[in-house]
Amino acid sequence: MKIAINPQKTQWREILKRPQVNQQQLSEIVSQIFDEVGRDGDKAVKKYTHFFDRVDVEDLLVAQAEIDRAVNQIDGELKEAILKAKENIEIFHKAQMPEVKRIETSPGVYCWQEMRGIEKVGLYVPGGSAPLFSTVLMLAIPARIAGCEEIVLCTPPNKDGTVNPAILFAAAICGVDKVIKTGGIQAVAAFTYGTESIPQVYKVVGPGNQYVTAAKLYAQLKGMAIDMPAGPSELMVVADESSIADFVAADLLSQAEHGTDSQVICLLTKEKLLNPIKTAVLSQLEDLPRKSIAQEALENARFLVVEDFHQRIEIINEYAAEHLILAVKDPEVYVPKIKNAGSVFIGNNSPESVGDYASGTNHTLPTNGFAKAYSGVNLNTFCKQITFQELSTEGLENIAPIVEKMAEAEGLYAHKKAVSIRVSQKVTVI
Amino acid sequence: MKIAINPQKTQWREILKRPQVNQQQLSEIVSQIFDEVGRDGDKAVKKYTHFFDRVDVEDLLVAQAEIDRAVNQIDGELKEAILKAKENIEIFHKAQMPEVKRIETSPGVYCWQEMRGIEKVGLYVPGGSAPLFSTVLMLAIPARIAGCEEIVLCTPPNKDGTVNPAILFAAAICGVDKVIKTGGIQAVAAFTYGTESIPQVYKVVGPGNQYVTAAKLYAQLKGMAIDMPAGPSELMVVADESSIADFVAADLLSQAEHGTDSQVICLLTKEKLLNPIKTAVLSQLEDLPRKSIAQEALENARFLVVEDFHQRIEIINEYAAEHLILAVKDPEVYVPKIKNAGSVFIGNNSPESVGDYASGTNHTLPTNGFAKAYSGVNLNTFCKQITFQELSTEGLENIAPIVEKMAEAEGLYAHKKAVSIRVSQKVTVI
Repeated sequence: MKIAINPQKTQWREILKRPQVNQQQLSEIVSQIFDEVGRDGDKAVKKYTHFFDRVDVEDLLVAQAEIDRAVNQIDGELKEAILKAKENIEIFHKAQMPEVKRIETSPGVYCWQEMRGIEKVGLYVPGGSAPLFSTVLMLAIPARIAGCEEIVLCTPPNKDGTVNPAILFAAAICGVDKVIKTGGIQAVAAFTYGTESIPQVYKVVGPGNQYVTAAKLYAQLKGMAIDMPAGPSELMVVADESSIADFVAADLLSQAEHGTDSQVICLLTKEKLLNPIKTAVLSQLEDLPRKSIAQEALENARFLVVEDFHQRIEIINEYAAEHLILAVKDPEVYVPKIKNAGSVFIGNNSPESVGDYASGTNHTLPTNGFAKAYSGVNLNTFCKQITFQELSTEGLENIAPIVEKMAEAEGLYAHKKAVSIRVSQKVTVI
Repeated sequence: MKIAINPQKTQWREILKRPQVNQQQLSEIVSQIFDEVGRDGDKAVKKYTHFFDRVDVEDLLVAQAEIDRAVNQIDGELKEAILKAKENIEIFHKAQMPEVKRIETSPGVYCWQEMRGIEKVGLYVPGGSAPLFSTVLMLAIPARIAGCEEIVLCTPPNKDGTVNPAILFAAAICGVDKVIKTGGIQAVAAFTYGTESIPQVYKVVGPGNQYVTAAKLYAQLKGMAIDMPAGPSELMVVADESSIADFVAADLLSQAEHGTDSQVICLLTKEKLLNPIKTAVLSQLEDLPRKSIAQEALENARFLVVEDFHQRIEIINEYAAEHLILAVKDPEVYVPKIKNAGSVFIGNNSPESVGDYASGTNHTLPTNGFAKAYSGVNLNTFCKQITFQELSTEGLENIAPIVEKMAEAEGLYAHKKAVSIRVSQKVTVI
């Protein structure tokens, strides 16, 4: 744990620095795998699934029988929990559906936007130490609400060549069309070019490790759209005297257990809050099954005491945390000033883990400072807005002089004429 | 002009093919310029402005005196036209401001999104044969409405080292903070790294040629957000017996005059519509100041006759045009079936040029088929959505069992504990 009490502004950058991943190193292997998958399709995908995940997969596509088995295998309580979480996530994401507003910008000039789901999307659900079936909900639910027509999910298989039953159950109830047993660079390459088993898609969405991120960035060069680049997960907790040390400690640990590279920042209003929280962290750490991961992540944790409110706000916005907990007595003073964050948790009853699973908000969020420019995954991630305009004769007459004048000044006379010829009415009907 | 009458579906891909730009060829020069701008700042920007644009620029930042001169220089009628266009664009983009909807997803669980403008944005306004001051309006107006705090505009200078007065006038009335005299790869590199004169920004927005597009794609690898990749401008006109040959011809030509690489597609419901439109195109072409450009673009134009309605819809969605004109008697039958398009112009009174300048919709739109995954520039381009959640004690108690069950199934016990410890209420107040 690194501690800083009222650090000088000049030190902030160093204090808030995230570990850098060298993407350059990965670019060669990424382009090689993309080339091979583009050329050899499934064969190359299987080759790299063997190489990276040490599994030989016969059929990349998960068969209906495996899905049926999975659905029967999950215990009833877990099913019910997943279904309840699904309900909340659906309520929140459905509420994001924009209404069509037909705007009359000038008399007779009607303009509006209509939302359309992206027809083909690829969802990426990471493998690794935890089977993240919650991520399936977070990606597939908004995709389905958006009206995406083909929803394909890639996830690395287990060592025995199966996919975790909870992932398959979540995929089944959320209307995923295909689940594919592959992850990593080869999955993103397959989404980009399409293979015998894996359809080409227009956008890849979902979290992933540095390989997946490097692959998503590379895929953009080949015309793929992505949700956002991803980095290790991170949490900033802001706590004052109204916060409860055991709660803050539990939140910090829930972030720390994600991975050894998890970022944990605790921003305190008073120095006297430091010790109780540290003590609580060390005490709760003892009982954790993932203690060694959490412990390693905590070595890089930062505890900052910043007494000045405006400086705290500046630090919050400079760091741009993926998750931000406001365990303070006056969150309403903070909220309007927060410019950069992925998802914000307000008050002592709102731990990050409610947003990770079941409050209804999305947990696929911008890390690594990307909250300065990116939203987390939401309905909009899976949509496009198409603009429409329809002018009445009067509407066209009203804005014709403006268009003519501007087109002329830009030297685009055919643009001008497209208006003039209509207004002058000297037309030949076909 | 290439003509196809009721082509087989197997031929569509070939017919709708766009010319491919080899981005690979550009990647070396792009990475070199990025490295140099990152290292040498303004000096490198000036070097490449000299190299590509053949201009020596002393001060990259446009001085206030040059802006004042420009404002005085523009004729009154043009000023008035620009101000009226600004008003319509403002009305349309202000209407896109989402309202904050506080959703109770479960009893006592409140979730909502709040929009925040991206703090620092870079606008790119292309140079070239036409001074595109209209693009300044299309980028700066939504940026300002979104609440972006620092809006910086880069545009290539004229041969005499000045910037077109109309561009400066538009920038001034739209609240652009800085106008910088540089374009191309070096401008995007400067936005990415920051230089002495050019602030680093979080997102670069705006159209550009293949160099600018290659630079924007490369900038993404360095952590920059962009609006979308860009390609040559394009138009598809769908016309039936209710359309007017001279109007259709004028629209096709207004697209063709943009550049020799402009894409023009005319999709007709009946073969008998072909000749009148072709005749009108050839006749109107004669009077155009940019005749040679339009003529070259027209050589690649496609005239398709597709009698089947469903096939027409499929072709529209497969091509995913930047601009789509529906000069048909029953546009309301088409509109709900259109899945992929940038901006749609409905009926005989809605030429593309109204959207290019003054109807209120944005003219920075996805080309090259990117309408399958991307929206055009809108308010959202300059915003992020931050999610918030606030739970009451009852709210937390309601969803605690769901979170606990799911966290346990994912093997994340610290996530579970962050909820359990709160519900069990055995807490130490600091």
